[in-house]
This record gives sequence, C-alpha cells and structure tokens, in this order.
Amino acid sequence: MAQETEIGLGKKARIAYGLDDISIVPSRRTRDPQDVSTSWQVDAYEFDIPVIGAPMDSVTSPQTAIAMGKLGTVGVLDLEGLWTRYENPEPILEKIASLDPDDATAYLQQAYAEPIKPELIVERLHEIRDAGVTVAGALSPQRTQQYYSTVLNAGVDLFVIRGTSVSAEHVSKDHEPLNLKQFIYDLDVPVIVGGAANYRAALHLMRAGAAGVLVGFGGVATSANRQTIGVSIPMATAISDVAEARRDYMDESGGRYVQVIADGSMGESGSFVTALAMGADAAMLGAPLARAQEAPGHGTHWGSEARHATLPRGLRSEVGTVGTLQEILYGPSHKADGTTNFIGALRRAMASCGYVDIKSFQRCPVVVTANRS
Amino acid sequence: MAQETEIGLGKKARIAYGLDDISIVPSRRTRDPQDVSTSWQVDAYEFDIPVIGAPMDSVTSPQTAIAMGKLGTVGVLDLEGLWTRYENPEPILEKIASLDPDDATAYLQQAYAEPIKPELIVERLHEIRDAGVTVAGALSPQRTQQYYSTVLNAGVDLFVIRGTSVSAEHVSKDHEPLNLKQFIYDLDVPVIVGGAANYRAALHLMRAGAAGVLVGFGGVATSANRQTIGVSIPMATAISDVAEARRDYMDESGGRYVQVIADGSMGESGSFVTALAMGADAAMLGAPLARAQEAPGHGTHWGSEARHATLPRGLRSEVGTVGTLQEILYGPSHKADGTTNFIGALRRAMASCGYVDIKSFQRCPVVVTANRS
Amino acid sequence: MAQETEIGLGKKARIAYGLDDISIVPSRRTRDPQDVSTSWQVDAYEFDIPVIGAPMDSVTSPQTAIAMGKLGTVGVLDLEGLWTRYENPEPILEKIASLDPDDATAYLQQAYAEPIKPELIVERLHEIRDAGVTVAGALSPQRTQQYYSTVLNAGVDLFVIRGTSVSAEHVSKDHEPLNLKQFIYDLDVPVIVGGAANYRAALHLMRAGAAGVLVGFGGVATSANRQTIGVSIPMATAISDVAEARRDYMDESGGRYVQVIADGSMGESGSFVTALAMGADAAMLGAPLARAQEAPGHGTHWGSEARHATLPRGLRSEVGTVGTLQEILYGPSHKADGTTNFIGALRRAMASCGYVDIKSFQRCPVVVTANRS
Amino acid sequence: MAQETEIGLGKKARIAYGLDDISIVPSRRTRDPQDVSTSWQVDAYEFDIPVIGAPMDSVTSPQTAIAMGKLGTVGVLDLEGLWTRYENPEPILEKIASLDPDDATAYLQQAYAEPIKPELIVERLHEIRDAGVTVAGALSPQRTQQYYSTVLNAGVDLFVIRGTSVSAEHVSKDHEPLNLKQFIYDLDVPVIVGGAANYRAALHLMRAGAAGVLVGFGGVATSANRQTIGVSIPMATAISDVAEARRDYMDESGGRYVQVIADGSMGESGSFVTALAMGADAAMLGAPLARAQEAPGHGTHWGSEARHATLPRGLRSEVGTVGTLQEILYGPSHKADGTTNFIGALRRAMASCGYVDIKSFQRCPVVVTANRS
Repeated sequence: MAQETEIGLGKKARIAYGLDDISIVPSRRTRDPQDVSTSWQVDAYEFDIPVIGAPMDSVTSPQTAIAMGKLGTVGVLDLEGLWTRYENPEPILEKIASLDPDDATAYLQQAYAEPIKPELIVERLHEIRDAGVTVAGALSPQRTQQYYSTVLNAGVDLFVIRGTSVSAEHVSKDHEPLNLKQFIYDLDVPVIVGGAANYRAALHLMRAGAAGVLVGFGGVATSANRQTIGVSIPMATAISDVAEARRDYMDESGGRYVQVIADGSMGESGSFVTALAMGADAAMLGAPLARAQEAPGHGTHWGSEARHATLPRGLRSEVGTVGTLQEILYGPSHKADGTTNFIGALRRAMASCGYVDIKSFQRCPVVVTANRS
Repeated sequence: MAQETEIGLGKKARIAYGLDDISIVPSRRTRDPQDVSTSWQVDAYEFDIPVIGAPMDSVTSPQTAIAMGKLGTVGVLDLEGLWTRYENPEPILEKIASLDPDDATAYLQQAYAEPIKPELIVERLHEIRDAGVTVAGALSPQRTQQYYSTVLNAGVDLFVIRGTSVSAEHVSKDHEPLNLKQFIYDLDVPVIVGGAANYRAALHLMRAGAAGVLVGFGGVATSANRQTIGVSIPMATAISDVAEARRDYMDESGGRYVQVIADGSMGESGSFVTALAMGADAAMLGAPLARAQEAPGHGTHWGSEARHATLPRGLRSEVGTVGTLQEILYGPSHKADGTTNFIGALRRAMASCGYVDIKSFQRCPVVVTANRS
Repeated sequence: MAQETEIGLGKKARIAYGLDDISIVPSRRTRDPQDVSTSWQVDAYEFDIPVIGAPMDSVTSPQTAIAMGKLGTVGVLDLEGLWTRYENPEPILEKIASLDPDDATAYLQQAYAEPIKPELIVERLHEIRDAGVTVAGALSPQRTQQYYSTVLNAGVDLFVIRGTSVSAEHVSKDHEPLNLKQFIYDLDVPVIVGGAANYRAALHLMRAGAAGVLVGFGGVATSANRQTIGVSIPMATAISDVAEARRDYMDESGGRYVQVIADGSMGESGSFVTALAMGADAAMLGAPLARAQEAPGHGTHWGSEARHATLPRGLRSEVGTVGTLQEILYGPSHKADGTTNFIGALRRAMASCGYVDIKSFQRCPVVVTANRS
Repeated sequence: MAQETEIGLGKKARIAYGLDDISIVPSRRTRDPQDVSTSWQVDAYEFDIPVIGAPMDSVTSPQTAIAMGKLGTVGVLDLEGLWTRYENPEPILEKIASLDPDDATAYLQQAYAEPIKPELIVERLHEIRDAGVTVAGALSPQRTQQYYSTVLNAGVDLFVIRGTSVSAEHVSKDHEPLNLKQFIYDLDVPVIVGGAANYRAALHLMRAGAAGVLVGFGGVATSANRQTIGVSIPMATAISDVAEARRDYMDESGGRYVQVIADGSMGESGSFVTALAMGADAAMLGAPLARAQEAPGHGTHWGSEARHATLPRGLRSEVGTVGTLQEILYGPSHKADGTTNFIGALRRAMASCGYVDIKSFQRCPVVVTANRS
C-alpha cells in the first residue's frame, strides 16, 4: 500500500485525502452536456440520476420519498426515525428546527427515546408504495434482526443497513450478532450496506452479498466523529479504496458488480461530482436535500449519531432552504454556491472532460491541490 | 509524469500548485529596473507590456479597450456581452453594480437573456478601430460559427475564442462542432484560444493553429467552478505544463512559437509576476483592471460563467476602485497592496533576479512554500 | 530515521505530526462497546480508565483528587501549587478565575511567589489518603531534592516528577543535579517522570528506572512554548517515538514494561482517543478535567509554566464548565463537542475498530489527513 | 539539491520552509539557563546577545542606538532615514504614528522625499559615538557610493549595506555599479551586507569580503513583497542555505568565518530562537524592538520599502508598545505572548536542549510540523 508516511518510530500511516483536496482538471476532449447519461442502477432498479436521499429525518419523510421517486431517484426512509416512533412527528420536527443548536441535542435524545412502533413501519412503507415509486427503508445493524421481518412483510424494494461503522464480522459477548451473509442470502430484496471505510471492510461486505456498499459515515457526523471519538474517513481516499475492492470482487466473483455509494461529506455539487470522479456509482445525499423547501427538517439537519443517548456525535445544524427538490436536483440555479442544480453541475463536469456516462467518468484525471486556493 | 500521489488504491493523482503556493527567490545577479524589457508580441502585433484586458463586461468596454490600446496593451471586447446586446448598456451596468451580491446573479441572467445584435458587434469594433488601437474581440466556442463572419467583416486584429473549457476535439450528437483547425486555417487573423488546463489540451490547440493559448478559466470563476462542478485549475501547474507544450510544439512544428497567456487567478501584482515566472508570455487580467476608475463595472466584477442561465458559476464580486488604468498598470502606487503599478512590480522582480526580458524571466528559480506565511 | 525533509542545505528535519493530523479509520471487524476493557496499571496500582488528573491547580485539588480516585482514576496534586503555599487557596483561585486574561499572568506570578510550606504538603497528602484513594503528588525536577523526603514521609503511592523538559542527564555549573537513576532506585514508590519529547529522551528516563514516562509538556503550554521559546512537541510523533522506546527498553531490560503517558494537547475526547491509538497506555488530562463543575479553576485553566516569574509561557485560559467529573469521564453527553463522556468515546472507537483492550488498540491503523476537513 | 518537487512539466522547485513551520524538540540532555552563553562577535566587536537593532526609523534613532549599546547590543542607524533628512524628525514620526494605515503610505512617500543632508549623517553618528557605544550605520546599495566617504569620515565601527536584494554582481546600463569586493577591500571597517536569499547569493557576498551577511529582506516587507512583486524568502530555508555557504566559504578561504545574521520575520521570541537554531549567529530585529517604550515609531513600524516613491511594499503597521527595551530583551515578562524577554527565551530553549553556546545550538535538532497546531 503506497504513499505511506512515518508518524513516529512506532507508527506508519497512509496519507489520506478528502473530497476538498481534489480538483478535476479537463483534458483534451469536450462534449455537449445534453449528450451525457447520468443513469445508474441497483439490481433491477434503474434511476435517472446517481442520487439517493439519505435515511435521515431531516431529509426523507414518506412525502419527500415520494417526491424523490417522481424526480427519478429514490429516498430511503429511516425506519428507526421519528416517522416510526410517532403517529404525527410534525410537531417534533418543528420543535427541533426551532431550538438553539446548544439545546437541540438534549431534545433529540428525548424525542428519539420514544419506542419504535412496528405498525408505523408498515404504514409508512405502504404510503410510499401506494404512490408508485421505489420503496426503500433503512435499519441500523443493531436493530436489523428485531425489525427486518416487519419491513419485509410491509414490502420494500431496497433494504438499507446503515451504521457509523458496519462490518461483516461483528463480535459480541452477550448476543449472537447478525450474520450478514446468511441474512442477505435469505432476503429476497437487494441490500445496500455500510458505512465502510476502506478496501478490506468493503470487500467483506461485498462477499457478504451486498448489492451496494455505502462509503463513509454520512456527512454531518464526520467532523463530530473526529472530535468525539477520533474516527473519520477522508472520503476521496475511502471511495477510491472501495472502488478498487469493487474491481477485485468483480474478478473473484466472476463478474458481480457491486454499487459503490458515497455517503456524506458532499455538501455542495462540486464535492458530489468529485465523489463520482473518485469511483462512486452514486451518492447518498443528506444536507443538500435537507435544503429543499419540501424537506421535513425545515432548514435544519441532523444525523442518526446526533441523537445517541449517551454519546451524541454531530449537531443539529442549520442548513437553510435554497429551493425546491426539483431545483436542487435539476436547476435552474439563480445562485452560484453549489446548492442547486446538482445534475446540471454533473453534466457540465462530465461534458467538460469528455465523458458520456458515470462509469467512464470514474476514470477522470484529477489533481491533489497543495493548498485550497 | 512525476510528483504523483496515491489518493486511494483505485486512483492516482498529480500534486498541483496555485500561484499562491509559489515564491520567487532572487539569486546571484541584480539589475536596474529601468534596464528591463517587458514587451511581447502576438503574430505581427507587438505590445509594450505583457497584459491583455479580459473580455469581460466589467473590464473591457469600447472606451476602455481604446484606453488600454493607448497605454501600450490591448483590451478584448466580449462580443457576447452587454455591448452587443444593448445600444446603451450603461443603465444595466449601473444596476448590476448597485445590487446585493445575493440578488445580482438572477439579474445577470435576465440582462444577458437579451439577444445579441450583429449590427452592434460591427458598431463596437468600428468604434475601437477608429481610435487607432489594436482591435480584439472574443466569442465563446458555442457561438463562434454563428458570429465569426460578422466579426471578420467588421474587422479585428486579434480573434479570441474563450470558454471555460475549450478543446480542439469537441464531440456533439446533434450538431457539427466547430472544426477549430480548419476554422483557424481559413481565417486571416491570429486566433487566441482557451482556456486550456494542461499539456495535452494546449498541445492540441497549438496544433490547431492557435497564435496564443489561454491557460485557465478566468479568475472569478475558479473557486466557483470548484464549488459547483468540482473543476479547477491550479494555475502554477497549468502554466508550467502549457509552457512545456509550447517547447515541444515549437520542436515538432519546426519553430512556431505559440504565446502562452495566463488567464485569471491573478488578483494582485505578485501573482501576475509569478504567472510569468511560471512560463507565461503574457497575462489576461480581469479583476485588476476592473478596479480602474474607467472600468465599466463601477467597482464590481463578474465572469461570463456568472451569467449562465441554468448553472451560474461565480458571483458578481465587489472589487472596489483603486486608481486610473494608468496607475494600475504603471503606477505610482500610494498603497502597498499589489493593486497598482503592475508593470513597476514586474520590472522590480525581474531586476531583483537579474533578468532582462520576459523570455529569460520564465526560467526564474522559484520555491514552493510549505505554508503561506 | 525515515520521513526526513531538507529545510535548507545546512539542515535536515523529520516531518512531525500532531494529534489533529491523525484520523482513526475502522477496518474489518467491529465489537460491542460494552465488551471493551479500558483498564491499565502502574506498578501494582490498577485503574479502570486510562486517565490521570494533571498536577495543575485548575484541575487537581485534594477534593478533586479524592473524587477522581472514587471514579476509578487518580488525580496528581501539584506539590508546588497553591495548596502547599496557602492554608486556604480558595480566595486566590477565585481571584485568578475572575481576572481578565491580560491581567492574569502578572497575578499568577504574584500568587505563586508565596513560599511552599512543607507542613501543607503533609496535610494535603494525608487528606487524600484518608479518603481511601490512591495518593499521587508531583514535584518539578528543580525542587525534587528539596521536598521529596517530606513527600515520602507524608506517604504517596505514586511520585511524579514533571517539568517542561526533563532529562536523565541534567548538567549544571553551580549545583549537583538530581541523579535521577539513583534517586528512583532509592525510593520505595513508583516514579512517573517527564515530559519527554522523543525516543532518546524517553529511553534514558526508562533506563533511569521510571515506572511511567510522560510524553509532552502539558497541553496549555504547547502553543505558548512555541511562541516564546520555539520549542514544541507534535504529540502524535512524540507518543509513537516513545512507544518505540518502550518496546526497545522492554527488550533490553528483559521484560520491564514502562507506561507511556500522553501529557497534554488532548482538549477533546477525539484527541484523547487518538493519543492511545498512537501507543500511549494512558493520558494525563488537564483542560478536559478543568471543565468539571468540581474543578478548582472555576472554569479557567493554567499550566505551571504560566506562572514562571520571568518567562511565563501559556495564558490562564477560559475553558468553561461542561458538567460533573462523572459526566466528563463517563457521560452521558448532551452535547456533541467532545468535552464529555471521554470513556464512552474511547469504548466506541475501540469497538468500531474491533479491539478489546488498550494494548491492542495501540496497533490501530490510522491515516494522516492532508488537510483537516 | 534535494527535496525538489515538480510544479508542472516545465518547472521544478524546492520546497521551502518559514520559521513558523519549524519546531525545536528537546533531546536527551538539559542544562541550567544561567549556564548558557549568548555572546557573539563581528570582527573585533563582541556583543553579549545575538541581537542587532534594525536600521529602520521606527526602531533605531540615535537615542535608541545608545540605549541598545548600553544593553549589550548594537543599533544600526538608517543613514537614509528621517534622522539624516530632518534636523528634528520628531514631529514627522508623531504624524506617521497618528495616521490611518490607509493614509500612511502616501505620507511616508512625501516625508522621505526630503533630501538627505550629509552634515546630519555626521552629526547623528557623532552623537552615538559620544555615548561610548558601538557605532553602526546603514546605507542602501544605490546610495553607498554617494555617501560612504561621509560616513567613514564621521566614523563608524560597523558599516551595513542593506537592500531588499543585494548581489555581489549588479548589472546596470547607465551607471557603473558598486564594485562590492573592491569597496569592502578599500574600507577599514567591517561590512555587513544583505539581504541574501540563498546559498549562491550569500557565497558571493562572502567572497566579496563581507564580515556578516544579512539573510532575508527585513520582516515587515516579506508578505508585502510577495503580494506586490511575487518575491519572498522562506526564512528557515534561507538561513540554513546561507549557513551552508558559511561552512563552504570557511573551507575555501582557509578559515574566514562570516557571521550569518537573520533579518526579519521574527516577530516573537519563538521565531527569533528558531532562526538561531537554523544556523544564524545573530538576528537583526525590527518589529520586536519597535514595541519598546523608547522606540521612535511610537508603537508603529515600517520598513524602507514602505516609503518607495512609486512601488511601496509593506504598510506602516501598528505593533503596539509592550515594555522597555530592557524588558523586551531581558525581561521579566508579565505576558506570555513572546514579545518580551527574548534573551530569557533563548536561554531557556538552549538549556532545554542542553547547548552551552549559540555555535553549538545551531546544530539543534528540529522538526517540520505538518500543520501548525
């Protein structure tokens, strides 16, 4: 493994890069933006654009999941979020949005102490399915065994298992951990699982049968994880590592292609585009979609780690409202701040570099910038 | 290609530098500033100073083009700008300057929605020619085919084709793209074309017959491009790459010397000087000239990307007014902020390092600074 | 010694890293946080958690030493601090906390000009022993010879010798310096000594018989030392170097294991966790514990260098109050800023990376981040 | 020459470091601060401390030159400054100090337009000599020929030739440049000359007979030079390069030792100490001494470049007043900000690393810090 540095006599380390350290540099050929394809697919499900709405209560509600489906993408409902704990979470959402950041964490802890209601899981998923769009729901690894049969009976098209760190080999003293391989094998639906942080973690998830692997922890928790537990994932390096795992697994599996999905640290369209250039097939977006007029977070945003009962990581942040979901995804933009027209930005970057589809754009040459200027 | 780093297992990248990362360090010999020559030439046109006024409505109007010509340089008129859309753009320019940055983008989009009038192209170019200075006009690659015969009939000395990313090999599904090589061959006037970002892109533009190659995207769009589409060009690396293409092309063409013109990221005289030390023959300046009392932007500045209808990049920024065009170019300075006396600064840097002309100054030794201190 | 760079023709240097430059990246296996052991021991003294309360008047008073003992750790009393100079230091502590930062240094110099009273050393140590917890006291190298017999007669379990730079080989013209090896040999109690900054300094302290070696200067003085005397210790590199000295000394001594204790630059739980991942067995915490409701500093914090009579280094800083000692160490957290639940954070990081104890966690893979994003 | 990086295909560069990038790390041995010698000498003149007062009107007046002499060091009078242009410059100094930074440059240009009076050169130097201290005066290379005989007749012990870039080989079309070698050979007094920026420039000045070489441009001009003309000297690299030139020249000259004097970029005692650890024998201080109660700048500070008639570089900055000259040099400090007790700081650093004199301290091991933390 190249590009190692010596921290001290007793420790070596790789140098790792974030998306902000990377810049795309156009080369010889250019193309028309309208000639570019941005489609991708997971299993049999094909989508027009390489975007997934993150399973976060500030981003994906049953209503926004439906809206995203109609816009050519898919929103994943957090099945351990407010929508499965409360019959009507709207007053809670409004309260969260109205609080000072300093007080919000304690209120999140209290609001999410309400038990999950299996019947609400069923109800929410049915609501999405009735709208005729792709149905996707997420559980944490800890609760997958408890609720997955409820989820499957309610019916989902895509099943997401998402935690800050998910491994194919969890060890526990007092309970039998989820056997991910057996679990995925037994299910009928494609499973997207993560976050994975590097080649090895991702390769094991691929061998366990994942249809897609999430890379990263989700955006808002990144800096908070570093501050609280010293753990973080420089995304450019992580995506590139996991893309290599995809190549190697494709070889060892005789051709199974696992989707690599960047999850987090993509607050603006520029870093979203860069994540694909690093090798991602699609991106799970949180903050960018939380800025939609339709977003349940009312201009605020928080991750699932932010509500942890004893060790919250990440704050409820103010992301503001910048336009409709339609404008955020497809434009037009009337500000030049990278918060709207994500797909227009992607098309222009791909066209400027002469690529016709995301698969080839993953090979796009980039540079590391010494300083961010 | 040296100085590569590994971003992750699946991706390698060069480390690239901006002008701010570079510092000129004087060596053994020194000279008198007045003994230094700053002249350069494109084809038969020779200029006293290595500066071109950028084709931006905040910088070059017919009047400032004339003023620049009389000061020993040349201003390029944007032939798709306000001067060819409106008989009298002054009220529009004043409105743009008066708006809040947050509201300016939407107004730019609206103002530039007015169609281009071919008769105004003719009128503006005639006005410049009548003043007896070099006439230069710019079109985007997209509109070159539509308007170039109007431009040629009106008469230009230098023809500039300028886009955020211009290639000698554009691919399109629904229209026949500009055959740059044939086009340049058929024209009677020297063509300056860009922005190119690296060796390969520049070499193809040189082979297509360009008399000069623009390096970069223009200044104001740089950070915005990165934020919105992930694309940016660290200028020190880009200029040095393109200078190498110039050397190789001179060899393969049996001696044709193509001018390398840095375009953007040179807000202060220090980075202007550094761009020449990287290998540029001249610099196309935007923001520095937008700070002139005569500048049409009235102390504000914007690039052509900032007015894009659906994906604007770059804001209308406030650059302020610091002196006359004469003072900005030739001094004297009464502030030490690098906004006036660009040529005095260049002369002093060249003299401190002992060089007599720009061609030899391109070999000036420099260092990369670990941190900007 | 690898990873050297050339500063100039006459000087080479290693590249050194701080804890903030490092990020822990989870790999394949994960675990349950409750399955993790955080215990460590010095000589016969075993502690539940790898934390030592720093010998600083803003952190450790007799009362907080007792409280720390009851919470499974140990607080070291500064035996040259206010508690051994004043019968009742509380008014002094309140005054220090109430002053403007600009005036505080001069007042610290004045308050610490009061002579040390040996009888107060005895009294304070007895007070701690009477509470039934581990008794630990610290002297500076300069005053160890003068007061150590007082200390030993009063009775301590752990003896700490702590200065900004402590060597096993001090040279003096006008007095016989402390023979550290003989001194430690003659004592009955385990001695922790530091701060050491690198392999060589640490190895000599280990050979002198230290039971534990402090790495670093203590937190608050770090940036001030750099500003005033140009000296600082990038902690990630220093801990890793000293951990290597521990390995080599264990080999040469036939199996003596010396504890490596990170001292300073760990203001948040993330850097505390990272210090252990670098190879530390435990951490001496200052600022984090000064934020306790019980802390004698009343929300302010200062190091022993800050009171130096002629060359103070480091200011009395405002650290605020964030919760009880219990909450800082064990949570629960209601803010996500890394100031509470240090042990919860450590457990989660260890569990995310699949390690069962601190000794194995020291091998945890990490990355160096190019930019802190 | 090691540690090169490739900026682009056409340009290579060394990586260069500033003093802020460097950190001193103590090694095995320690010493008592009072056992340390800080003396150095130029030719027959020996000084207690490695400090020279810079020839800047905000720092060295006849009065402060005398005060510095009595404090064991030497202040160099700028013989082209206000003291040789005005019989009584005090009202000018007060006016400069009272102006807004934005207006100060234009006033400096006007005040320094007054001609230099040779009789005032004589008068000022006599005033210093009459006080019984070492007499030192500085001229720029441009005016050395015009005034040096006046200076010599008035009597100086040390002659300083100081410009932003001084070479032993100046080339001019319309006048015969100073033949530095002949000039120094003909003089009776030791000559200190600079600023030199690297090995080659310094070696030529040494071969020209300089008793001391100034490294750098003087502090205040550094960032301004970079901003205006793209030139700057990362000081850690420059000092180390020039120290190597000293070693090589000592060899080729059969033992002539030329003093290496860091000039500028040492605003706090930490960077002053670091400059010596890089290989400097002494430091010419500007801003630190301009903070003295006695300083003629009344709490403001400017370099000679800041008054340039057409290309001023560097502003008149506000540095404040922190204590007497005595306190700045010898303490005691009552603030921990590195602005007082420069010699105390140096003694402590040397003692912490176990060195007895400056010559051996130049070999002090240091590290490059990846990020300034």
